[in-house]
Amino acid sequence: MASKNRIRIMYPSSEKIYVPGKIHKINVGMRKIKILDSVTRDENGELVYKKNNPVIVYDTSGPYSDPKIPVNTQNGIPRIRESWYAGRKDLIRLEELTSDYGRQRLADSSLDHIRFPKHHLPYRAKTGKNITQLYYAKRRIITPEMEYVAIRENQQIEALGLKSYITPEFVRKEIAAGRAIIPANINHPEAEPMIIGRKFLVKINTNIGNSALSSGIDEEIEKAVWSCKWGGDTLMDLSTGDNIHETREWIIRNCPVPMGTVPIYQALEKVNGKIEDLSWETYRDTLIEQAEQGVDYFTIHAGLLKKHIELTQTRLTGIVSRGGSIMAKWMQIHNEENFLYTHFAEICEILKMYDIAVSIGDGLRPGSIYDANDAAQFAELHTMGELTQVAWDQFVQVIIEGPGHVPMNKIQENMKEQQYACHNAPFYTLGPLTTDIAPGYDHITSAIGAAQIAWHGTAMICYVTPKEHLGLPDKEDVRTGVVAYKIAAHAADLAKGHPGAQVRDNALSKARFEFRWKDQFNLSLDPERALQYYKDSAVTDGEYCTMCGPNFCAMRLSKDLHKEKCDRL
Amino acid sequence: MASKNRIRIMYPSSEKIYVPGKIHKINVGMRKIKILDSVTRDENGELVYKKNNPVIVYDTSGPYSDPKIPVNTQNGIPRIRESWYAGRKDLIRLEELTSDYGRQRLADSSLDHIRFPKHHLPYRAKTGKNITQLYYAKRRIITPEMEYVAIRENQQIEALGLKSYITPEFVRKEIAAGRAIIPANINHPEAEPMIIGRKFLVKINTNIGNSALSSGIDEEIEKAVWSCKWGGDTLMDLSTGDNIHETREWIIRNCPVPMGTVPIYQALEKVNGKIEDLSWETYRDTLIEQAEQGVDYFTIHAGLLKKHIELTQTRLTGIVSRGGSIMAKWMQIHNEENFLYTHFAEICEILKMYDIAVSIGDGLRPGSIYDANDAAQFAELHTMGELTQVAWDQFVQVIIEGPGHVPMNKIQENMKEQQYACHNAPFYTLGPLTTDIAPGYDHITSAIGAAQIAWHGTAMICYVTPKEHLGLPDKEDVRTGVVAYKIAAHAADLAKGHPGAQVRDNALSKARFEFRWKDQFNLSLDPERALQYYKDSAVTDGEYCTMCGPNFCAMRLSKDLHKEKCDRL
Repeated sequence: MASKNRIRIMYPSSEKIYVPGKIHKINVGMRKIKILDSVTRDENGELVYKKNNPVIVYDTSGPYSDPKIPVNTQNGIPRIRESWYAGRKDLIRLEELTSDYGRQRLADSSLDHIRFPKHHLPYRAKTGKNITQLYYAKRRIITPEMEYVAIRENQQIEALGLKSYITPEFVRKEIAAGRAIIPANINHPEAEPMIIGRKFLVKINTNIGNSALSSGIDEEIEKAVWSCKWGGDTLMDLSTGDNIHETREWIIRNCPVPMGTVPIYQALEKVNGKIEDLSWETYRDTLIEQAEQGVDYFTIHAGLLKKHIELTQTRLTGIVSRGGSIMAKWMQIHNEENFLYTHFAEICEILKMYDIAVSIGDGLRPGSIYDANDAAQFAELHTMGELTQVAWDQFVQVIIEGPGHVPMNKIQENMKEQQYACHNAPFYTLGPLTTDIAPGYDHITSAIGAAQIAWHGTAMICYVTPKEHLGLPDKEDVRTGVVAYKIAAHAADLAKGHPGAQVRDNALSKARFEFRWKDQFNLSLDPERALQYYKDSAVTDGEYCTMCGPNFCAMRLSKDLHKEKCDRL
Repeated sequence: MASKNRIRIMYPSSEKIYVPGKIHKINVGMRKIKILDSVTRDENGELVYKKNNPVIVYDTSGPYSDPKIPVNTQNGIPRIRESWYAGRKDLIRLEELTSDYGRQRLADSSLDHIRFPKHHLPYRAKTGKNITQLYYAKRRIITPEMEYVAIRENQQIEALGLKSYITPEFVRKEIAAGRAIIPANINHPEAEPMIIGRKFLVKINTNIGNSALSSGIDEEIEKAVWSCKWGGDTLMDLSTGDNIHETREWIIRNCPVPMGTVPIYQALEKVNGKIEDLSWETYRDTLIEQAEQGVDYFTIHAGLLKKHIELTQTRLTGIVSRGGSIMAKWMQIHNEENFLYTHFAEICEILKMYDIAVSIGDGLRPGSIYDANDAAQFAELHTMGELTQVAWDQFVQVIIEGPGHVPMNKIQENMKEQQYACHNAPFYTLGPLTTDIAPGYDHITSAIGAAQIAWHGTAMICYVTPKEHLGLPDKEDVRTGVVAYKIAAHAADLAKGHPGAQVRDNALSKARFEFRWKDQFNLSLDPERALQYYKDSAVTDGEYCTMCGPNFCAMRLSKDLHKEKCDRL
């Protein structure tokens, strides 16, 4: 039985605020961090207090950080988007599940004890209608989702009363051009819309998922919320163990961020791990099963063709993508073309009915520095570009997955090749790791690469934890991985000059210079850790820290130097 | 009383080897990592074993990793370089210490209980002679130190029987041109020569040092050796507490890597922390005191001029360099020019007598993203370039210190400005941190920047630990910081195409692909952590790991795919 626990996310000195839409009836949740006054002395030695603006930051924690919304995992979180499409004429609500597997699981009473208590009937596009964000964007319609992300991207700019180029219309144009996507399955109305595109804040994805014999449902929900707490923008459920279907339902119903999956994993479970038994029919039913649960994007390794396999013969580390290696093996056994490729148009027909985005998987991503940017990788990339057009023809939103292991000098080339081959569809990379020699520290080897590739235009970076290559991450690993990737993403936002990105840096640095320690912690990506490290050292005074001691505090000496204090921000 | 402990560094499956010089009687220590055989099956299902070359890696651990050399901290480590200059006519051995302070401490019997047991009389250049590596290089003489680093830089290439462009003559030319330095005080013969220059392996520096009330001598030696264990190339002792002189002696006598200091710190201690009482005389005596102990390079904040101070008025975080803020305050109190600037030629006259390199400190390095690449920083940088010429005029080797906090988009500009302003003298940067918002994770924010600036040409990067901005690092922080910086340095070496850099990546990736787990750990930067993480997960078989389970192991599937196994390396 899954948890009845109320889950709550707390951030220090923070308040949940909502910014209403102007076009649509929407409310965009944000986090307001309160800042202490700056304190100085005037000529007479009297204390002078000066207000500091609060800092408003992008918030991925959904209702969990709103004390007014009691969250009980048994109920799921509020279905905020459901009212947005209540009146829409292009949607229907089905009377039963469409997939065989979904129906079979629902009818199996032996699963009742692990089943999510509420059964929500799925939405789907009416026959002949297209409901994707891309379709609306092309028709010049600004959806609530588009306005939502426009407000969300500008959290700090709006608060300062400034104008940013990121307007709802700008969002619409980027989506219409295929340069950005909003992954938002209509069956996941719990998710707060977010945008993935190179002209927006860089997003990060985290992976969770149980494997055989590992974690249970409670633990998976806890991990999902934990990822949201630290700033994960989307969540991929890579489960391969038992009861994937039921576990996924619990997670989606409690997940305020878009969720992705790799459906081939579950399809393979359904044929008991026998790759030879995989078929289009099983896969298709899995897509529909997951579509009606609310998965927002599917990783589909459709770009890996039979002819590409021989290109991996000269590789050092062959095929390191799980999905890629499964499909390669299937092709070898059957001596047939990848069925994900041959059925790609049909896949898109399913996806568009729910507005699921496709994340075209890079089955041939390099697994070592040696294999980076090789013929196999780029051959597949060009096929991915071809598939991008197929998806776009049906107004299915597309992102393209990328590597992997790439030395720094090849990162920009990889980014350029992706943009060229895939017609500017957003790039979504795993790292890349910039060296192979640091297992145990691959959150760092890859944050170095992720920051650079994001600066050059990658829209979303998939986190890597310290356990990569060694084992499954525990909660602390997830936290470390997420924060490492928030750093990479933010460093890229700064380098790209995203409007308002630097406001938080400035506020934190000002707090640091003025010895407002609490503000420094509260403004940081991980206030708890910063505070803990500070406490671990013996602090003797508010006016200097243990690093240098009183005689060597540069900041104090520097402040003494200037009569007027820093009030420029 | 300091430790009588024997300190030993152990690396798994590793052997200490020595490569002899061809020009000089030198032996260059290296670490040879033994690799298991690759095991495959032939057509008949019989096991076939194939040898793998051992991997030879750069080794900073000195005698501590050689079981044949018993190290007792009471004796200090072998003075390997002393025999190299035994016959030289341009050196003399002094009969007593030159500095007043050094003599005074030596005469004080109350310090006997904390004094290093052996008193080595200092070496110095004969009057009228120049003994620096730069001087020799300009005279077209290849010193033992030059041959040593040439062999050391090529550890892997030579083992493979290949030729590299890094020859002793190449080293000499780079030093002669001022593009590289070998910091090697003749009074630190325990140190193994290493080279800092953009055409060589990127080096990393670690900082240790006690502050008031913190660690003792034993602990400082332990930290120094610990830094060498993980790969620190040089070590800066930033102590500001009691008994700096005696502590430093213990560290230098046991330190196999060059050591740097910031002499103004000790000078300030000598005047009881009263900046107004700092004087050229005190500082000069401190230089000589430390010179005769064997400090290999001095950070000297001579580029910060009186006129620069007003440029910091518009900064968000003023002056964040300790040395810089001390000198700024001194200039303000006395209304005089920085005495490190006005006496810089005299400083160089002292330095050249011992072949101490000068690391011109950047007192105005930016302490926040907001202040990066500002007028103050670049004004000082140009003065540093002017001082570079002053030092070179006396054949004193020069490196230039750099920031700090710099967003990614300003890193290359900073590098270019440094090369231009400082006539290609090697750049030595602290990070830079690419965002301000992650205290507790600044080893990561800065490894991102360090990898990039090193790729663009920075020769040495100064590590940052997770405790930066929050407190003093403990041993685990030092380990994490060093490994993060080894990653950044190695990523840069790969990107720059340093000869042989990729050999270790290839060997590790091949081991990973062939499920030779032990080799994967042994080849990694931190074998202990990699092994621990692996053990933390329940491993069920040698042919797959807990990450994916048996059905989802991409590497196993990929290997099944190809009949022939990977024997290309």
